[in-house]
Amino acid sequence: MSTALIVLAAGKGTRMNSDQPKVLHRIAGAPMLWHALRAGAALAPERTVIVGGHGFDAVAEAARDYDPDLSVVEQAEQLGTGHAVRIALPALEGFEGDVVVLYGDTPFISPDTLEAMRAARATHDVVVLGFEAADPARYGRLVMEGDDLIKIVEFKDATDEERDITLCNSGVIAADKGLLAEMLTKVGNDNASGEYYLTDVPGLARAEGRSATVVRCPEAETLGVNSRTDLAFAEAAFQAAARAELLDLGVTLQAPETVHLAWDTVVGRDAEIEPNVVFGPGVTVESGARIRAFSHLEGCHVSRGAIVGPYARLRPGAELAEDVHVGNFVEVKNAVLHEGVKANHLTYIGDAEVGEKTNIGAGTITCNYDGVFKHRTVIGKRAFIGSDTMLVAPVTIGDGAMTGSGSTITSDVPAGALAIARGKQETKPGLAEKLMNMLRAKKAKQKANA
Amino acid sequence: MSTALIVLAAGKGTRMNSDQPKVLHRIAGAPMLWHALRAGAALAPERTVIVGGHGFDAVAEAARDYDPDLSVVEQAEQLGTGHAVRIALPALEGFEGDVVVLYGDTPFISPDTLEAMRAARATHDVVVLGFEAADPARYGRLVMEGDDLIKIVEFKDATDEERDITLCNSGVIAADKGLLAEMLTKVGNDNASGEYYLTDVPGLARAEGRSATVVRCPEAETLGVNSRTDLAFAEAAFQAAARAELLDLGVTLQAPETVHLAWDTVVGRDAEIEPNVVFGPGVTVESGARIRAFSHLEGCHVSRGAIVGPYARLRPGAELAEDVHVGNFVEVKNAVLHEGVKANHLTYIGDAEVGEKTNIGAGTITCNYDGVFKHRTVIGKRAFIGSDTMLVAPVTIGDGAMTGSGSTITSDVPAGALAIARGKQETKPGLAEKLMNMLRAKKAKQKANA
Amino acid sequence: MSTALIVLAAGKGTRMNSDQPKVLHRIAGAPMLWHALRAGAALAPERTVIVGGHGFDAVAEAARDYDPDLSVVEQAEQLGTGHAVRIALPALEGFEGDVVVLYGDTPFISPDTLEAMRAARATHDVVVLGFEAADPARYGRLVMEGDDLIKIVEFKDATDEERDITLCNSGVIAADKGLLAEMLTKVGNDNASGEYYLTDVPGLARAEGRSATVVRCPEAETLGVNSRTDLAFAEAAFQAAARAELLDLGVTLQAPETVHLAWDTVVGRDAEIEPNVVFGPGVTVESGARIRAFSHLEGCHVSRGAIVGPYARLRPGAELAEDVHVGNFVEVKNAVLHEGVKANHLTYIGDAEVGEKTNIGAGTITCNYDGVFKHRTVIGKRAFIGSDTMLVAPVTIGDGAMTGSGSTITSDVPAGALAIARGKQETKPGLAEKLMNMLRAKKAKQKANA
Repeated sequence: MSTALIVLAAGKGTRMNSDQPKVLHRIAGAPMLWHALRAGAALAPERTVIVGGHGFDAVAEAARDYDPDLSVVEQAEQLGTGHAVRIALPALEGFEGDVVVLYGDTPFISPDTLEAMRAARATHDVVVLGFEAADPARYGRLVMEGDDLIKIVEFKDATDEERDITLCNSGVIAADKGLLAEMLTKVGNDNASGEYYLTDVPGLARAEGRSATVVRCPEAETLGVNSRTDLAFAEAAFQAAARAELLDLGVTLQAPETVHLAWDTVVGRDAEIEPNVVFGPGVTVESGARIRAFSHLEGCHVSRGAIVGPYARLRPGAELAEDVHVGNFVEVKNAVLHEGVKANHLTYIGDAEVGEKTNIGAGTITCNYDGVFKHRTVIGKRAFIGSDTMLVAPVTIGDGAMTGSGSTITSDVPAGALAIARGKQETKPGLAEKLMNMLRAKKAKQKANA
Repeated sequence: MSTALIVLAAGKGTRMNSDQPKVLHRIAGAPMLWHALRAGAALAPERTVIVGGHGFDAVAEAARDYDPDLSVVEQAEQLGTGHAVRIALPALEGFEGDVVVLYGDTPFISPDTLEAMRAARATHDVVVLGFEAADPARYGRLVMEGDDLIKIVEFKDATDEERDITLCNSGVIAADKGLLAEMLTKVGNDNASGEYYLTDVPGLARAEGRSATVVRCPEAETLGVNSRTDLAFAEAAFQAAARAELLDLGVTLQAPETVHLAWDTVVGRDAEIEPNVVFGPGVTVESGARIRAFSHLEGCHVSRGAIVGPYARLRPGAELAEDVHVGNFVEVKNAVLHEGVKANHLTYIGDAEVGEKTNIGAGTITCNYDGVFKHRTVIGKRAFIGSDTMLVAPVTIGDGAMTGSGSTITSDVPAGALAIARGKQETKPGLAEKLMNMLRAKKAKQKANA
Repeated sequence: MSTALIVLAAGKGTRMNSDQPKVLHRIAGAPMLWHALRAGAALAPERTVIVGGHGFDAVAEAARDYDPDLSVVEQAEQLGTGHAVRIALPALEGFEGDVVVLYGDTPFISPDTLEAMRAARATHDVVVLGFEAADPARYGRLVMEGDDLIKIVEFKDATDEERDITLCNSGVIAADKGLLAEMLTKVGNDNASGEYYLTDVPGLARAEGRSATVVRCPEAETLGVNSRTDLAFAEAAFQAAARAELLDLGVTLQAPETVHLAWDTVVGRDAEIEPNVVFGPGVTVESGARIRAFSHLEGCHVSRGAIVGPYARLRPGAELAEDVHVGNFVEVKNAVLHEGVKANHLTYIGDAEVGEKTNIGAGTITCNYDGVFKHRTVIGKRAFIGSDTMLVAPVTIGDGAMTGSGSTITSDVPAGALAIARGKQETKPGLAEKLMNMLRAKKAKQKANA
């Protein structure tokens, strides 16, 4: 059956106490909205519609960053979930099949759960996702008769008997698009909030002779984020699950609780990650690589046998081939380091390519910026870049070339050549002693005068 | 009513296993004593007296660092809390009003609690702060009749019936100075420890026809520190509360449990703090600033839109204006960075001023120390400091000036000028190859000989 | 009584999902096997035999790294614990006395427990280590009559009544070598797994008229590691205990949960360790030293009064004398820093000796590698190394000598001399302005053409 997603993402999130729309607050480096979209991707949806509202432009941009093909519609006034879905439907023109409604602030619905909802559609017209709540207090209740969902009751409208129900509504719902559209024309706003509730749909459908049921998932999947405390809790939940998954895959994490993963971090078996490592988005680490303590990786690739850190900063576009060592206080950005390259101390490599087995001395810097343009540095194989070499880009260093330490290299260096650019050492006997004596005398005089 | 504080801070803290007086051990970067003084400040005390004892000089110095106007008296012999307060009273000569007794090792009494004690003084002569103990075992018990406190019983002197009481004594007490002084003359030391106990005061006052009562606070407020394990627990409690407060204020903390705040850290709404950030004392971060992972901030100010880190080290006197970027492995000390300054890699800026929109290249160092004196570096607006520039202070770089990368700048550079100070590059064809071959041959020979 | 250890370390650890043998996975920086060996060392064993199997060569190497004198035997086929011990016995030829069998994946048996087992041997022929299991489900049960151990029953062979027993078998066993050897000849493999079980020994011994008993230890000591999740749990347990021990010893740990200790870390009383510090193996920190946040220490010694970090990286062979300051983004390897040396910013000191009270300027690098050989740098007392000095080793800087900032020093500098090696500053009025205007014009043109 074809599926379309509608993702509701219009809320302001007042309790977030933020100028940023709620669904753009991040978990593991990705907007909550992306997590919801990734969850929905398990259904291989033909079409996806995001309903934005507060901070519409920013939400639309974030949605399109995730997938330029999805539709974004604006709900200018927040008139309820039923209203939001009604607004979304025109964007599904031409689509026939099932619609699944998800929420931009409910990031953890699992693929299995969505699959189970799809399966349940074989026997029922409307499928609602429910959960047994440990503390059901404020949730809507799902009133069942056997497998049949009779209706969803909002907490404030529930009788005492209904309040005793612990099966609660997640808000996630699946139904045929046509049925959903028809039912939404019947949803009214004659309630305390004056809003159109999507939750009326199952009851209305049933009144029309259609059937409804509930698929149950663990409460943790329905975790919604309404405050920054909720967000921190969701982040912690994500991290705990992601760390456990890496352990299962055979990754060595000495202190898993100190490793911060991004939503899309990939790490191979028998890779080792020491304490206090932070992953931004877009990182892949191959089997057998070692990421040492206090390293920070974003948008980069680390190959088998490579050693990164401690205190390595890999920025987007850093590509480390096998057995590369990038060490202490070294930053790499938009640069390919071929097999066996070593850059172990106090170095900045940006906008560069470094050939295999080249050694980059301590304190080396690729001077890639002239104040207006960025330029590239290209270094060949088995070159030896002396400590504190400034490579003023654009510049090319040939295979097997060397630079003298302390040199500022502004012209290309051919293969096998030695380039040196520094002043000749002058040693002035006794002068240090004389200077220090002068300075100390000055200080003594100052003290005497004070 | 006027209030004076007496803060008892004479104890050795044997179980701390430390040469440092107990009350100087720090929580969130401040001596415990300061936390107690800050709590007491809620009462806007007219006068404050610290009673020191063990490590008296260090305690006195720390107390005066907090507020040079407070009095410090020495309790040479530790003869009990009653004795300590009696010693403190002469320092309150001329003061009329209430005395509140606090403890230097009880850092978490809340302003609300102290306010409630002040209010209770309207109806009772003596007010004691009590708490319902989850495990009352070793605490003194508060024997009540309705709202009236009959007496405080030390645990070892308590009957079985009294030991069943769960309302316990925090030690904090408030009374009119005159009454307190009078009662303290009647407190004896005829007990197992041979000490004069402040806890005798309510019973004695009542025996004289005065009234006493109890104000209750959560047990967590009365947390006392007697060992390093207690201290670590107190630190964790402080951090948990401080992180929760920032979340409520609308600060983004991806992993709050990894952010270590100081007692006086101020962070604005929608500022973002990544994992693994440590704040020392004296830091303010404005709304919308971003503090990236692995940064360390002390005594500095970060303005709106600024980006700090990862791996930024801001030391006292670092003042970052709006949109400043201070990046990877960069240290700033006693320096003003005006709007839009960028210093993104491997840089040390100390004792300096940098004009707006100036770009500081990677590896730049302000050479501020000549072995005896420290000197200032002044850089103008929209200047471009090339990578690995040594700025030998005192030195001034004008607006829009540039320095060539690898230059050691010892003389001022006028506005719009380019300064360069480096050797000319010489490139010697084939020499690198020759040198490496020689070195390798030498190694081969060594191996053959070994 | 003489004691010999047999440590079983042949298992693959399939659930570790690793190419590395299980017992080589590390806890607190040391292979699990080493922890077991350290535990066994409490008995001052005369001889020790490791039984390896999977990854035999690696296990043998790790065992000999711990102690070159111990024996390693290979169990080519995994035919059970009884088989493994039988294979080990020939390596104990000539030894008379007790044999204690330990496990390479059970790292936390305490010295007290092993002592108690030894003591119990005075009254019984066979001593088994047992524990009261919170959840005994899959463990073998210890069937007792008073103090006498009747037999060990594997869970799968246990009757319902036996399954109700909560006293479980740790696998650790002690017996006279002769008795053990004799009993092992009688152990059969007529069971579901077709393996020879060491656990048959007590029952067989008893059938021969010998006595057996059980020594009990806390379940935590018998923690076995079978998966990476177990390993992370064991690491956390080790860290919690090690941190608590440091607190008891009077070490200041602001946030103990963020300090990662190695198995052999030694820290003195009143030393202070800030948040986020990682210790690799082989570190000793003296009383009163201060290790600041984000520091990483391996194989080094830090003396009284020294200040390390934040962001200091001390590598093996770093020896810091009293009052040395090693600061921000500074790496030290195989170098002795004498009393009062300061190296506070962006520096690499490797293969060096630095005399007392010498100041190392920011950005200084010892250029210790020429592409083939490593060379030493020697700096005298009270020298002043200017910022960004490259010390091209081998090189010697005399007492009280100075180097100009930005200098590359290739020749020795005598005591009291000043060495300088840099280009003369040229300042070209207006040139910066002209260059920037050209670059901006070029960019504008590019934009116009785009």
